[in-house]
Amino acid sequence: MSSPFELVAKKGLARGGVLATAHGAVQTPVFMPIATSGSVKTMTGDEVKALGSSIILGNTYHLLLRPGPDILKQAGGLHKFMKYEGPILTDSGGYQVFSLSKINSTDEEGVTFQSHIDGRSIRLTPDSSLEMQAAIGSDIMMQFDDVAAGNSTRERYEEAMERSLRWGKASKEAFEKHVRHDALLFGIVQGGTYEDLRQRSAEGLKEIGFDGYAIGGLSVGESREDTFRIAKKVAAMLPEDRPRYFMGGGMPEEIVYYVSVGVDMFDCVLPTRNARHGQIFVWKGDPKECVREAFTRAQEGAVDFRIAEAFYEKIQMTSEKTIADFSPIDKFSDCQTSLDYSRAYLRHLFKAGEILGLRLATAQNIRFYLRLMEELRAIVRE
Amino acid sequence: MSSPFELVAKKGLARGGVLATAHGAVQTPVFMPIATSGSVKTMTGDEVKALGSSIILGNTYHLLLRPGPDILKQAGGLHKFMKYEGPILTDSGGYQVFSLSKINSTDEEGVTFQSHIDGRSIRLTPDSSLEMQAAIGSDIMMQFDDVAAGNSTRERYEEAMERSLRWGKASKEAFEKHVRHDALLFGIVQGGTYEDLRQRSAEGLKEIGFDGYAIGGLSVGESREDTFRIAKKVAAMLPEDRPRYFMGGGMPEEIVYYVSVGVDMFDCVLPTRNARHGQIFVWKGDPKECVREAFTRAQEGAVDFRIAEAFYEKIQMTSEKTIADFSPIDKFSDCQTSLDYSRAYLRHLFKAGEILGLRLATAQNIRFYLRLMEELRAIVRE
Repeated sequence: MSSPFELVAKKGLARGGVLATAHGAVQTPVFMPIATSGSVKTMTGDEVKALGSSIILGNTYHLLLRPGPDILKQAGGLHKFMKYEGPILTDSGGYQVFSLSKINSTDEEGVTFQSHIDGRSIRLTPDSSLEMQAAIGSDIMMQFDDVAAGNSTRERYEEAMERSLRWGKASKEAFEKHVRHDALLFGIVQGGTYEDLRQRSAEGLKEIGFDGYAIGGLSVGESREDTFRIAKKVAAMLPEDRPRYFMGGGMPEEIVYYVSVGVDMFDCVLPTRNARHGQIFVWKGDPKECVREAFTRAQEGAVDFRIAEAFYEKIQMTSEKTIADFSPIDKFSDCQTSLDYSRAYLRHLFKAGEILGLRLATAQNIRFYLRLMEELRAIVRE
Repeated sequence: MSSPFELVAKKGLARGGVLATAHGAVQTPVFMPIATSGSVKTMTGDEVKALGSSIILGNTYHLLLRPGPDILKQAGGLHKFMKYEGPILTDSGGYQVFSLSKINSTDEEGVTFQSHIDGRSIRLTPDSSLEMQAAIGSDIMMQFDDVAAGNSTRERYEEAMERSLRWGKASKEAFEKHVRHDALLFGIVQGGTYEDLRQRSAEGLKEIGFDGYAIGGLSVGESREDTFRIAKKVAAMLPEDRPRYFMGGGMPEEIVYYVSVGVDMFDCVLPTRNARHGQIFVWKGDPKECVREAFTRAQEGAVDFRIAEAFYEKIQMTSEKTIADFSPIDKFSDCQTSLDYSRAYLRHLFKAGEILGLRLATAQNIRFYLRLMEELRAIVRE
């Protein structure tokens, strides 16, 4: 099985690579903005690309419920439906079933859940998840997995991990049945905060054989210390020649840490969600120097807030502080709207409920995350 | 008093002109998208310009309440605050006081009202309205006027009209006191549906002398027949060498009619508001031919729906009809996003509550109105 991933640089444990997909190559480490329902919040696909994004993530659960597989198939897949030419990764839907649908029950074959939109009962299995991801026309598909809640018992973590291995095998069979040959399939390492369970999971997945490997079941309520510890351990368990994807994390300082221990791919709702709540991430100084300092601290094993304080701060745009701040939204950003518009104007837009405020804040935060990755890629490739 | 307006063409009663402002020339007839609170809903100023807008309208009432005159002065005016380089027209605030604040009382000097945001009591007079418009840095300011409710008694219309004349004079004095010399001031013709009151109003305003004249107090509940009749009569009462502005109207077919009887300027919330409610205006065929037919019908005195059916239809994007309609949002539009994205995708965005849906619908509707004006200008200038 040839690898879609080429490792081109190393710095300590950190890696620089190139991931080939059917819709173009992706330089790693990379952040994937989230297009939950066929749109990165507030933006067209072209706009996300213009901010420097090379790959986005679509949510199988949301797209299954709306617009549904029939419309996506008629449209010729999500790329055509949303008019986006770049690579798309889709999750399997498992995590959203677990977190969004009030009623869901898991058995050995799959999960039955009620739609959070209209209450109808839907069943998702390894086979139907991959079938849906095929309807989406995703470039990188995730195996269907069993997700244990944060702070579960060891028994539950073990059960979910073992079932995820069985579903990983079933997902691969479904992938080979439903999916065009140029798509990729990733396995997901489970096992909670237990290193031996993680080890068993990683070994089992490698036996099945995937194009890439994700670290699942973290950032779900465990301590940040545990997250960091497990992420580092799991990264070390995974094959060098395959991409490593930390699912659903995280804050900027977390991403710096995960990169420093050898993770390659990230997605997170924080830049878009926080933007909608009026919170923006801004550089403390020149991004190149800021990220270098943050990366150095991460390599030295600094705790999360020590990494964070090296490079950025959060500003709540609805607070009084920015009412007469006529400086740019972020003078260290290279996002044009963040240079063009003032914090006072952005605050006014939020107070007045103007949609343009959501757009400017979203652009700032997405560009912040993407710039962070650009600087990390530069450091790793030196 | 020299005129900022040059009449360059006539076709029947319809006029083509050029209005000079401190932020550039405006070709008329023209439609002004509304930037209520310092943003044309969902858009940057550059984006509105790119859709073909040459002038926008700001609401003095909204901007007075938020961000308020202090912030606008510190910002160096609305142009700088919202980063928009083109001409801005502001209303006087009178109409919004009347329609938006639950408690308001009018006396001979002005209006006292409660903010609909925080309930504080605010007083607006001809002097303070012009002072606020000066803080905004508007290029075209409106006199402060007394607005009678639709279907008022003749006595109330007459009172409001006479008071508006007195306030027109006071507004001109305030304009000369507060305002930079390159701004323009427009008077507003009142008098409800009574032609003699309208005549008295027009004569009184001409005696005072303004840079342009608006037709106020229409589209407030009277019959469409009355609106058309009064608009035509009032246009004929106004000087040839000054721009004529129909305030707050209206539907596309109304604008075609008003242009056909000699009105030059328009503003309306319909394109942006209807877009937010998922309703888009789309061309029935080639815009050039469609508008020509509509204009011909308007010149022949056709009723409103006969004008409308010549050139466009409204589509409700939340309806089932478009669920699998993969044709462009408007194949006859030259708005890029309306050509790029399908009705099925736009419907999906509305159903999923995605902000991009509001943006695509707003762009479609604004471009529809601006294209309508381009075609009308071309017809008048032939």
